[in-house]
Amino acid sequence: MRTPSNRRRRLGGWGFEDENFEPSPQLIQWLNTHVGPPGPALGDTNLPIPGTRPRPLPSLPGEVCSEDRDRLFHARGQGLIDIIRVRSGTVPALPDAVVRPSNADEVIGIFAVCRDAGIQIVPWGGGTSVTGGVNTPSSDQPVISVDLERMSGLIDFDPISGLAVFGPGTTGPQVESTLAEHGFTLGHYPQSWELATVGGWAATRSSGQESLGYGRIEDMVAGMEVVAPAGRWRLPALPGSAAGPDLRHLVMGSEGRLGIITEATLRTRQKPEQTVVHAYLAPDLETGLDGIKALMWSGLPLSMLRLSDPPETEVAMAIGLGTSRFASLAQAYLRLRGIRDQACLILVGAAGSKIEVAEALEGARSILRSHRAVSLGRGPGRHWQRDRFRHPYLREALMDRGWATDTLETAVPWSRAAHCRTEVRRALETALGIEGERTAVLCHVSHPYIDGTSLYFTFFFRNASDPEATIERWARLKRAASEALVRSSATISHHHGVGIWHAPWLKYEAGTLGLDVLGDAARRLDPDGLLNPHVLLDPTDRLME
Amino acid sequence: MRTPSNRRRRLGGWGFEDENFEPSPQLIQWLNTHVGPPGPALGDTNLPIPGTRPRPLPSLPGEVCSEDRDRLFHARGQGLIDIIRVRSGTVPALPDAVVRPSNADEVIGIFAVCRDAGIQIVPWGGGTSVTGGVNTPSSDQPVISVDLERMSGLIDFDPISGLAVFGPGTTGPQVESTLAEHGFTLGHYPQSWELATVGGWAATRSSGQESLGYGRIEDMVAGMEVVAPAGRWRLPALPGSAAGPDLRHLVMGSEGRLGIITEATLRTRQKPEQTVVHAYLAPDLETGLDGIKALMWSGLPLSMLRLSDPPETEVAMAIGLGTSRFASLAQAYLRLRGIRDQACLILVGAAGSKIEVAEALEGARSILRSHRAVSLGRGPGRHWQRDRFRHPYLREALMDRGWATDTLETAVPWSRAAHCRTEVRRALETALGIEGERTAVLCHVSHPYIDGTSLYFTFFFRNASDPEATIERWARLKRAASEALVRSSATISHHHGVGIWHAPWLKYEAGTLGLDVLGDAARRLDPDGLLNPHVLLDPTDRLME
Repeated sequence: MRTPSNRRRRLGGWGFEDENFEPSPQLIQWLNTHVGPPGPALGDTNLPIPGTRPRPLPSLPGEVCSEDRDRLFHARGQGLIDIIRVRSGTVPALPDAVVRPSNADEVIGIFAVCRDAGIQIVPWGGGTSVTGGVNTPSSDQPVISVDLERMSGLIDFDPISGLAVFGPGTTGPQVESTLAEHGFTLGHYPQSWELATVGGWAATRSSGQESLGYGRIEDMVAGMEVVAPAGRWRLPALPGSAAGPDLRHLVMGSEGRLGIITEATLRTRQKPEQTVVHAYLAPDLETGLDGIKALMWSGLPLSMLRLSDPPETEVAMAIGLGTSRFASLAQAYLRLRGIRDQACLILVGAAGSKIEVAEALEGARSILRSHRAVSLGRGPGRHWQRDRFRHPYLREALMDRGWATDTLETAVPWSRAAHCRTEVRRALETALGIEGERTAVLCHVSHPYIDGTSLYFTFFFRNASDPEATIERWARLKRAASEALVRSSATISHHHGVGIWHAPWLKYEAGTLGLDVLGDAARRLDPDGLLNPHVLLDPTDRLME
Repeated sequence: MRTPSNRRRRLGGWGFEDENFEPSPQLIQWLNTHVGPPGPALGDTNLPIPGTRPRPLPSLPGEVCSEDRDRLFHARGQGLIDIIRVRSGTVPALPDAVVRPSNADEVIGIFAVCRDAGIQIVPWGGGTSVTGGVNTPSSDQPVISVDLERMSGLIDFDPISGLAVFGPGTTGPQVESTLAEHGFTLGHYPQSWELATVGGWAATRSSGQESLGYGRIEDMVAGMEVVAPAGRWRLPALPGSAAGPDLRHLVMGSEGRLGIITEATLRTRQKPEQTVVHAYLAPDLETGLDGIKALMWSGLPLSMLRLSDPPETEVAMAIGLGTSRFASLAQAYLRLRGIRDQACLILVGAAGSKIEVAEALEGARSILRSHRAVSLGRGPGRHWQRDRFRHPYLREALMDRGWATDTLETAVPWSRAAHCRTEVRRALETALGIEGERTAVLCHVSHPYIDGTSLYFTFFFRNASDPEATIERWARLKRAASEALVRSSATISHHHGVGIWHAPWLKYEAGTLGLDVLGDAARRLDPDGLLNPHVLLDPTDRLME
């Protein structure tokens, strides 16, 4: 399959084929200690391509491809279970074709054919969903994946207002390189930045690592064009409005159920002269959380903030930060303070002119010092900036060796943050219920708000004897964590979205009346239920599919 | 009628009976020059109370009042035409009772009775709608006004997260005085602050004068409880979420069509040490707009920004700023530069510690100087801060003398701001179409965004020979301005809402599919159409009602 950058996407794993992130010996040692020796490896060599023949389809607008590899690539997203299914050759359903429209009229044409022929549609941006959001449903009807990669690039730019209109298939690097020509930036850097697309970001309420400075995607989307089976729907770009409910917020997060976003008008900013990230070690999690909140409440113009809990701090050192020049200093400090097990890594970033950055980071230093944090300088931040889009590759490197790892995320008010972390950790640590099988859990804060914060969990467990049993382990962990989130009145997702795997728990947040309203909107815009029927609003537990 | 502060609300005019804002001789002179001598006065002495008898109602939960004055007060909001109708005794319909529930269960009880008895409901917060949003419809069915003043006050406060749960009937001063006890502030200061309520703010997407620093009400509302005829709907307070469409944004702006907001959880902040406002004069509008945009793009932590166009700058001096100590300096400067007719007043505010405020305002000074603006010091800002909630009283003081004045507002991207101002001005100046009748128009920027700005228009015209003819003039002006906004691709309302008077133009912004979706939501949550049936989604032109 093609990617706009002409780098070949990996099948059965994250990202590009020419990129990897190998675990350090320290990480392997950490896993052996905290999870146990590896289970059976599940590699990606000689991937079995399921031999299901595509069902016959009528003629469709756009480029239509029914090659096995393209269909398999579009059958699944990038969840752990997706990778296991692709690697083990147990993907239950493939799209019958991958269709690539080049404009909104072709999308409308695709809807017309699909309505008449009873074909289901899964819209596809970068395919990086980790919630099952782009997975091909098992269906009696034919299913196509509508890949929007040909609808990419800058459509219009208003430099006076900083408003940029992009096609939905535009990836992060395309966005930034195009805007850089005008001296502007979007500043949206989710971990999937190299792969994911403008349309996907908007459809799933994506949030980037510098959301503190640049906002969530919801803050960036000023207007949209949506093509639904019921018609074309333009939501004009407006800086602020009190003209009724904000319908942009109904489209954002609709995950393809209400239509396909065919254009997004984004708020961009003048590219900052520099972005600098400073690192600190807080003496313990409680003090670290207090420090992060104090930074948020200070109103300092920071672009990013991140706080790792003690286990993640340990692993951060093991996967690379520990090899940087700051490590010996940090280790010495930790030994000195006798708090090695409690220390929490903090990253603080600011973007702007040299003076603005210096002032903001000086303000941050003063607040963090009053919270007994010790400066580690710029080394860890540089390291993190360099590797931040490579970290996801580690998952497959571990699967190659027999360990499984996945992530989940939430957000809660400050008053419940520590408790929520404890609840989710406990749920994950006890969910397997298999003698001798352990789960190790890391947690960090990466998207703080004035009233609360995101919590991002990474968990590790051993591959089971066969792929189905590994998926069963994952499903138990996922259910336990989701229930812990509901018990903590935390959101089921801060930025991964709902997809199919979070859908059973959406009712606790949206309410049954909210789900009714969303169901009505889906029926209004997509009366024949062509688009993503299992996503978002179908509460069936499909964690094993 | 009672108000929480025990000050008596005025009938047939804005605000409290014990407050006034008299026009200065300079303003009277300005009006004579730019609009012409006054038409017939329309005062508020010996107000005729329409003698319609309330229709019989079944027993309703809550306090039920059917006194004439209370019913008349609740029959209309605070639009110019509302004031004319009340003063001239031509209000076409009064609610058959004013019902004051004390909790959500009573609201549910009211819905049940109204459903069974076929009674329509108009929810009422502070009654300050200037879009007809709380007006009693002329209906064959009985109509009640549900005043939420008894559901006011702080319900819960989480000082760790800064989250405050308020009842919907809580007014601005109640919010701030309660939070001040905890050292916190909401920072939401619409011009209606003294009268309007938390529930009304959320239902109409209100925006305050310091929205630059504290955000619009949408940014402040973390969660809500809504009671709809279809049931009770809780939207939990979350700092950020990707769990599907953000349903809070469906409730905010729903103007009572989807239910009554019975609780709102608001994001509050630590009360700043000080708020300081500096004033400048920009040499002309274009340079002033550029300066405001440069301030926005600088990322400086400012709390408010305001730019008056040349006519408004002239009037600002006439209504009081000109009597302050800075006036002679300003006048001298203007004479010196020969730009008296083009100068634009700028107000720049910052909130925080003494040092933070000084740094932010110093940054602003540097940017504004590079845009050739001249400092006027703190005098005009102090003046504005003192009088900002008194300005609306001026409308009735002018009506007492024979001039009519109203306001309207919009928002557009920066690239269309100047053009939109010109279009709206031209529309207002030419709409009357009556020989010798002129309209004078002022404009200011008060809510700038990264990608654009609000534009707020104040217009003046002469009262006609009878109230109906004055309303006819107003309707012509309103239609012409609304059409100019649509032609400019500007929003029909930046913070006044839709109500009934903006509803004919909502389709240009929401799209017909958007209106269909909102209609479905209203039918789902209020299947019998009890709530505000003419508001928001009914596009009938009711500008004369």
